[in-house]
Order: sequence, then C-alpha cells, then structure tokens
Amino acid sequence: MTADVPASMRAAVDDAKERVAALHAELPRWELVVWTAGNVSERVNGRDGHPDLFVIKPSGVSYDDLDADAIVVCDLDGELVEGSRSPSSDTAAHAYVYRHMPEVGGVVHTHSTYATAWAARGEGIPCVLTMMADEFGGPVPIGPFAIIGDDSIGRGIVETLRGHRSPAVLMQNHGPFTIGRDARSAVKASVLLEEVARTVHVSRQLGDPLPIPQEAVDSLYDRYQNVYGQR
Amino acid sequence: MTADVPASMRAAVDDAKERVAALHAELPRWELVVWTAGNVSERVNGRDGHPDLFVIKPSGVSYDDLDADAIVVCDLDGELVEGSRSPSSDTAAHAYVYRHMPEVGGVVHTHSTYATAWAARGEGIPCVLTMMADEFGGPVPIGPFAIIGDDSIGRGIVETLRGHRSPAVLMQNHGPFTIGRDARSAVKASVLLEEVARTVHVSRQLGDPLPIPQEAVDSLYDRYQNVYGQR
Amino acid sequence: MTADVPASMRAAVDDAKERVAALHAELPRWELVVWTAGNVSERVNGRDGHPDLFVIKPSGVSYDDLDADAIVVCDLDGELVEGSRSPSSDTAAHAYVYRHMPEVGGVVHTHSTYATAWAARGEGIPCVLTMMADEFGGPVPIGPFAIIGDDSIGRGIVETLRGHRSPAVLMQNHGPFTIGRDARSAVKASVLLEEVARTVHVSRQLGDPLPIPQEAVDSLYDRYQNVYGQR
Amino acid sequence: MTADVPASMRAAVDDAKERVAALHAELPRWELVVWTAGNVSERVNGRDGHPDLFVIKPSGVSYDDLDADAIVVCDLDGELVEGSRSPSSDTAAHAYVYRHMPEVGGVVHTHSTYATAWAARGEGIPCVLTMMADEFGGPVPIGPFAIIGDDSIGRGIVETLRGHRSPAVLMQNHGPFTIGRDARSAVKASVLLEEVARTVHVSRQLGDPLPIPQEAVDSLYDRYQNVYGQR
Repeated sequence: MTADVPASMRAAVDDAKERVAALHAELPRWELVVWTAGNVSERVNGRDGHPDLFVIKPSGVSYDDLDADAIVVCDLDGELVEGSRSPSSDTAAHAYVYRHMPEVGGVVHTHSTYATAWAARGEGIPCVLTMMADEFGGPVPIGPFAIIGDDSIGRGIVETLRGHRSPAVLMQNHGPFTIGRDARSAVKASVLLEEVARTVHVSRQLGDPLPIPQEAVDSLYDRYQNVYGQR
Repeated sequence: MTADVPASMRAAVDDAKERVAALHAELPRWELVVWTAGNVSERVNGRDGHPDLFVIKPSGVSYDDLDADAIVVCDLDGELVEGSRSPSSDTAAHAYVYRHMPEVGGVVHTHSTYATAWAARGEGIPCVLTMMADEFGGPVPIGPFAIIGDDSIGRGIVETLRGHRSPAVLMQNHGPFTIGRDARSAVKASVLLEEVARTVHVSRQLGDPLPIPQEAVDSLYDRYQNVYGQR
Repeated sequence: MTADVPASMRAAVDDAKERVAALHAELPRWELVVWTAGNVSERVNGRDGHPDLFVIKPSGVSYDDLDADAIVVCDLDGELVEGSRSPSSDTAAHAYVYRHMPEVGGVVHTHSTYATAWAARGEGIPCVLTMMADEFGGPVPIGPFAIIGDDSIGRGIVETLRGHRSPAVLMQNHGPFTIGRDARSAVKASVLLEEVARTVHVSRQLGDPLPIPQEAVDSLYDRYQNVYGQR
Repeated sequence: MTADVPASMRAAVDDAKERVAALHAELPRWELVVWTAGNVSERVNGRDGHPDLFVIKPSGVSYDDLDADAIVVCDLDGELVEGSRSPSSDTAAHAYVYRHMPEVGGVVHTHSTYATAWAARGEGIPCVLTMMADEFGGPVPIGPFAIIGDDSIGRGIVETLRGHRSPAVLMQNHGPFTIGRDARSAVKASVLLEEVARTVHVSRQLGDPLPIPQEAVDSLYDRYQNVYGQR
C-alpha cells in the first residue's frame, strides 16, 4: 500500500464504495458479464492537497460477494491504498483513464457478447438507431489491439475517446470500455452499448440498416444530452 | 401545469396510474427494454365537460422506482397536469395518437431488439405465423423516419396505423409503437410483436418462411378478435 | 356443460389439475411462451364405465393466475365438463389427439421461438445431436398447415406422429405440439425440442452440421428410452 | 455397490457433496442446461490405502431437487459406492478421466447451446478473444464422435485434452466436457466456454474475426494462469 485514505476523503470514499458495489449488480442483471468478469470504478476527488483516488472491484471475486466492504481503493497510479484483496486486473487501464481524462468520473469494462463480437472483427458500430444518436452521438469506435502488462490498454482507450462524442470504445479482440461523469453514467453507457450492438447486429444479419442523416444525428444527440431525464 | 385533475376524474386517474405502473413491469419481464427506455400510457376519458387526460411514465426513471405515485398525468396536448417529475420524452407522440385516434385507449413504446432491427432496415414483418394473423391480422407495417421535436413521430404513427389491422408500427431507425383499447392491450401487442419479430427473423436466417394464404389470415384474425379469451 | 365429473374420478381429476397447474410454470421458466400463449393438458382415465376426461389451461389467462382451481376439465370431444372459464382455444386439437392416440396421456402446445422458426419454413429438424437421438429418435417432423375451426390441426398431429419415434411435431406456420405418456413427459419434450431447435439452428448458421449415422441414432434412442433416469 | 465410503474419507466426501450440489446451481444460472441435462463431479483423494472416489449428480433428477443428500459417490470404475439413486448416465466418462488424468479434480458436462453448435459441425473455436487466450490458452479443440456404452467418450476426452492447454473439449455432435483442478474450476471453464462460443459465433456471422498473434496468446495465458485473482 502506498498510503492511507486521508480522513478528509473518508466519507466520500465510503459513499463511492456503496455506489460502486450496488452498480456492479447491474452488470449481471443486464447480462453483460459471466462469472467474475467485468468491473466498475469511480473517481473520488482529492481534498486538502491529497490527490484523487478511485474505488474498484477486487480481482476474481464472485458478484454474489460484492458488498461495499469488498470494494478496494487505489491511487491514480493504480496502486492499492485500501482493501484486503488485490484490485481488478484491469486496474491499470482504469487508472490511466483517470490520470489523462480529468472530466471522467466513472469507468466500466465488460466482455458483453455483442459489443465484443464487433470488437473481435475490429469493426465499429454504425449509427443506424435513434437510440445510438441519443446516447453515443454517432458510431461507436474501435480501439487498438493491446494486451495487459503496460499502459497500452489505457492509452488506447484515451486516444480513441478523447475528442469523441461516444462514451464507449470497443477494444479490438477484447471488449468494451465505457466512461461517464460518474460510475452510474458509465454503467448506463455499457448497458445501452450492448443493446445497440445487439440490435444493429441482428438488423445487419438480414440486410443493410439504413443510415441516419448526420444533421438528424446531431439534433438527437444535442437534445438528449440537454433535455432528457429529470432536471 | 395547465390545469388540475378535476374531482370527477380523480378515481379514474388513480386507477389508471395503478394499472400503468403495474403494466410497466411487463416491459423488463419480457425483455423489451433496458435501463429506463420504454413507456406505457393510458387514456382517462373526460367527464362533465372536462377533456380527456392520459397517464404516462416519467422521463429517465428506473423501472425499480415506478410505483403509481411516480406516474404523471398529461392533457391531450402533452402538457403536464399532475406529477412531480417531467413526463416521458415521448409524451408528444402519445398525445398526438390520443388526439387523432379516439378509439385508442393505450399506447406503448419500446426499443425491443428484434422489432427495432426490422425498423433499422425500414422493412415490415411479413405474415408467416398464425400468431401474427391472430393478433396483427397481416404484416406489421413500417412508419416513416421522424425525430423528436415536433409532431412528426405522432403523425407517422397515426398515418400508418389508421385503417390498418395491425396495432403495431415499426418507426424507421427508431423502434415500435403499439396501440390498444387500453394500456393492457397495447402492452400485449408489444410483447407479441417482439416475439413474432424474433421468430420471423430467426426463420429467415436459414431460408424463406412460407407465406400464409390471405383467406387463412382473414379467418384467423376474425376468429381471434371475436372468440379468443374469456368473455 | 355436457356432464359432471363422476365421483369415482374426482380424486384423479384433482390430482391432474394440481400437476398440470404446476407444469404450466415450466413453460415461462424455459422461455417457451410469452403472455398467455401455450397450454398443457393431461388425460384422466375413465372409471366404472365413465369415459376418459382431460384437464387443460383456460383460454387467455395469465401464467401468474394459473393455480389448480383455474384449470378446466373437458371430455374427449373437447366440451367443457367443469370450470368457470372457457377452455384453451387449442382444446379441440388436444381432444382429437386423446381420442385417436390412446397411448398418449399428455399434450403440450407452445409457440417456442426456434421450433416455430423451423415450422415457418416448413422444414423438419435434422438429427445432428446425440440429445436429439436420445429424446426424439431421429429428425423432428413437420405437420401440415391447418387452421383452427375444425379437426384439421388434431388430424395433422396424429397423422404425423402415429408410427413416428418423435414425440414432437412442428405444425407448419404455427408451432410445435408434443405428446407423452403423461403431461410431464410432454412438457419435457417441449423443453428439449426448443433446445435442439435452437442448437441446430445456431450450428447451421455457420455451415453444415455433421449427420449422425443411423445405427448410432438407433443405439442412442434405444438406450435412452430403456436405461436413462431413475427406475 | 462395490464398497462403502471408508471412515477416513467421510468428511472429505461430505464436503465434496456440499460443494458439488451448490455448483450444480451454476449450470441453470448461466443457462448451460435445460431440464435435467448436465452434470458436475469432483474427485475425493484416497486415504490410508483406500483408492480415490468421486461424487456426481444422479441421473435424470431435477435441478430443484439437487441437495447434498442427492449427490452419489462412485469409485474410479464408475461403480456406485453410496447413494439411493443411479449415478448420471455420463458417469463412465467422468470415471475414465479421473483414472487417466490424475491432475484432474473436477469434470463438468453440459449441452450448452453455442458450444454444442460448434460441436455439431465438428469445428473447434478459433482463438480471437483475449478472454479465450486467458482461460483456454488458444483454440478450443474438437473431440471424436463417440456414443455412450463403452469407454469411447472418456477416451476421446483424455486423448484430446492430454497435453493441451484448453480445459475444454467439444465432443462432436454431443457437447462440451471441461476439466479443472477441482469442480469449481471445471464449472468456471464451462461458463467461460459457452460465453466465448457464443461471442465468436456472433462475430463470425458478419465477417471474419481477427486472429490474435501467437506471442500475445502465450503472454495472456501465462499472466492469467499465474497472476489473476486473489492469491
């Protein structure tokens, strides 16, 4: 462990653990993961000169055992700060995103079936559904092939998503990562990503889905980001 | 808010809220929606000179939180009459249908996967199942591409379904809307629509489904509308 | 009603109602039905000169409301003998099977997706899985196109299954019927049918499944019918 | 019965029964089985000169009734040692694996849909997902066509998996068998196998998935076997 959680961040860290533990239940609920795969993290903003931290799922733990106590805390270099278990094996990628995209407050990784099937072909998802225009603002992009062990996954995510409307990237041969202003937004993006990945796949099986004109995509995206939901 | 719920309609509005809250649970149960997508509404007939109202799901609210108190009330212009949250972002389309199709008592909108996959290709579903002849009386039609912001979605639904046997329309690149004499009938149509959309899709993946002769379609539709179920 | 349940058959009828109500829960559990579709029936052998009866699901009733009291009793002409609701709209087909196949004690009808997809193409399922050889003894046959209103569905089932090893028939453009020595066996055949319909469909999507030699089919079928399970 | 469970192995046998009963619940949970299909077994190491035993599911019993008392005990010839019911009809195959692969502590057999669909074509699953490289270390191999009644299924499993990284084999026209150091590992392999079988199938439906370079496969496999999870 590199440091303790500072007292001034204790309440915020504990709240994030509760939220992230609860959000993990959404992954099996929407059938985005099997066994212990998949992970959700959330940034906790630093206070009083202490740098940011993030909370994340431990490695290889069953979804049945994921209460707030099981969630671990890491610094933005991905080093364990608090927790009795090893952090997720994808921790370095989450940490890289938090270091390089300060606007990102939540990150989710899954191997959800249809999104991963597009990723295995190295093919992005074309924007042919109004629901895609709403949430993703256009096509969902492909990220590079990269394997665990250095910064290459994190770098691939950041270089693909920086300046892109889409909160989701399909890492080639691997699976999707999604980002959001908090963990809940990133989970929502994962859920909607799998739904559009499935729907566009099914549509393409029997012909060519019709493209949506760019000005309609822009209009839908703008409205959804600014108007949808409860204010 | 444009007006209050008149006292003479209070009991009917409250009953509709209960029914519509319960019917929303059918959408995730039959896997027609993810996250907060999809919505059900039901008309409440006007009384003593008060015009009709309808009840509908609020925007962007989790299915776990949808009890009768969360359901909001709108007038037929789609303006909020009662409720602490914004109505569904599809409210204008529901309102348009209630204004222009007085025989319609319930409307449902989802992005159910297989129905939406047909919609993304702009292709109606051919009538190759006796279950389709029973419930839809023939093929399920495609409606125009239309985006949120004016009356174009509502108009597209009404122009497609008026004079058509099918209680379902596939709005191009968007998803299905279904209508019924009440909310329960419209929900039933949504559930059966997704089932026939999936079954015909699967059948077509390995060859051409056999058409049903028109006179058999007519005979099945007539019997089902007049005989099926408990009288 | 044509007659009452004779006192000598009361206990057997009540037992069959309990069994059939419980077995109906297997249909949504294994995702063979949506909404109120599908039905299970079981023969009750006649006693003391009274002819056979059968119990069956009422028409258009939700699976949530199917307790033993909701199950209705019919004679082998399909006329209601006991029950406060109309029998399933498929009752005439069940009755025809019981009249013409005295060895059959249970009948199940569903519109399960993959089995119905084969039926819509008018194509039987080839025997390419050991599980098919075990349970169906070879390919699953197609029955004729027939619509409700006379004996044509029941006759199509009986003419296809008489002398066939398979307890399942795919009625063209309609869906599967399965038979068994009792309702439980017929439900099991419906569950396994959908599983093999799905697996062979999926296999054929990417090439040609390998046939199983006839002598291996015969050997598997013989062993399974005589050895499998608890004696 | 050939012998009793020796007193020195009683506690270990009872623990294995508990574990294996609980692990059976994972098969329907991850939708790997229908009805009573599928089975899990675990080796119990011999003590004080008594040879090894293994515990396994009884034949044709519902997943709802599978508590520890229902699990039966066999010797490595597949003969029943303890239990009031017949052992699974696949017992001879499990026994063969335990006799010939002393490093194997758990065996699982299912007919999971997508894995069985590859098996029906006699086609192994190519390694195009990092998750496959992690868990399977390369492609998942096909085993020979073999039917129940002698040692041919067990021999086919052992000859295919011996010296192979993959803990899973797709027995042609039949379905998958997986092995592991204990029953839990073998169940995990079954769950991940179905997920990769489905994902690669879906990916191939719309084009050719991209292969992963061999050195990346090797690197991923090595890391996952040695680093992943809690130590």
